Parts: sequence; structure tokens; C-alpha cells
Amino acid sequence: MIDKNEIIGLIAAVLTTSAYVPQVYKTWKTKSVENISLTMYIVMAIGISLWLLYGIYLNSLSLILANSITVILTLIIIIFKVRYK
Amino acid sequence: MIDKNEIIGLIAAVLTTSAYVPQVYKTWKTKSVENISLTMYIVMAIGISLWLLYGIYLNSLSLILANSITVILTLIIIIFKVRYK
Repeated sequence: MIDKNEIIGLIAAVLTTSAYVPQVYKTWKTKSVENISLTMYIVMAIGISLWLLYGIYLNSLSLILANSITVILTLIIIIFKVRYK
Repeated sequence: MIDKNEIIGLIAAVLTTSAYVPQVYKTWKTKSVENISLTMYIVMAIGISLWLLYGIYLNSLSLILANSITVILTLIIIIFKVRYK
């Protein structure tokens, strides 16, 4: 059963993940990655992976969902960055 | 007392927040905000605020710290976007 707190978490997850998607889409579409720092995205990917682990420990559906999706999106940006540099 | 899970959360918080800072710094330094969508940042700010609320409900130090800082950084970008558009 999903409680009130989890609903807030899930809305948060949808909003922050949605706001992250256009950047990935833009990178995909334009193949333009000059303005993106590879180091920054690697740090981000490690950080998001740890949030995912934290979410698993906390049994937080919102953290698990949001960070599973954003870590994949971040890895896609890293692949673009390495491939089209 | 901070347990093992909270240490993972805190490392996650430091990494994702650190990876977010250069973008704000770049916006501050160059006053260049053409590539940034205002709508995206407003959605992000609302999402991060809800993560903060979720962190408060969960009593999660990591979520509270990370989202307090990133919501402020996101609001700074929004102010730049509105001021220098």
C-alpha cells in the first residue's frame, strides 16, 4: 500500500526525472556535447547510483524509481559524450 | 548517530550536489542562460522541494541536506534566467 509520504515522493520523482529528460533528448538529437563536462556526469552517475542504493536500504519506492531512471539517462549522456567527442 | 545507510546517502548527496554546482557557477560567470529552459528549471525546483518534504517525512538527513542545497541552486538559476533573458 502506498502511503501519503510515498505519493509526495513519487510526484517529486516524476517532476525531477521529467526535468532531466529534455537535456538527454537534446544531446541525443543534436549530438552536441561540447558544453557538457564528462567528469561532472561521471560524478553525477556515481552519486545517483549511491542514491539508488540508499533508496534500496530505506525501502523507498520513490528513490528507487527516480534514481533507476536517472542513472540510465546519465549513462546515455556519458556514452554520447565519449562517442561524439 | 549516523548509521551505514546514512553515510551512503550523505556521499550520494555530496556527489550529486557537487555535480550540479558547476552548471550554476557557469551561469553565474557567463550570464549565459540561452540554452536553459525556464520551464524545465521551474519543474525541477518544484520536484526538489517535494523531495525535501519527502526527506523531512522520512527523517532522512541525506535527502534534507541534498535537496535544501539543490533547491537554492535551482532558484539561483531561475533568477538568472528571468533577470538576463
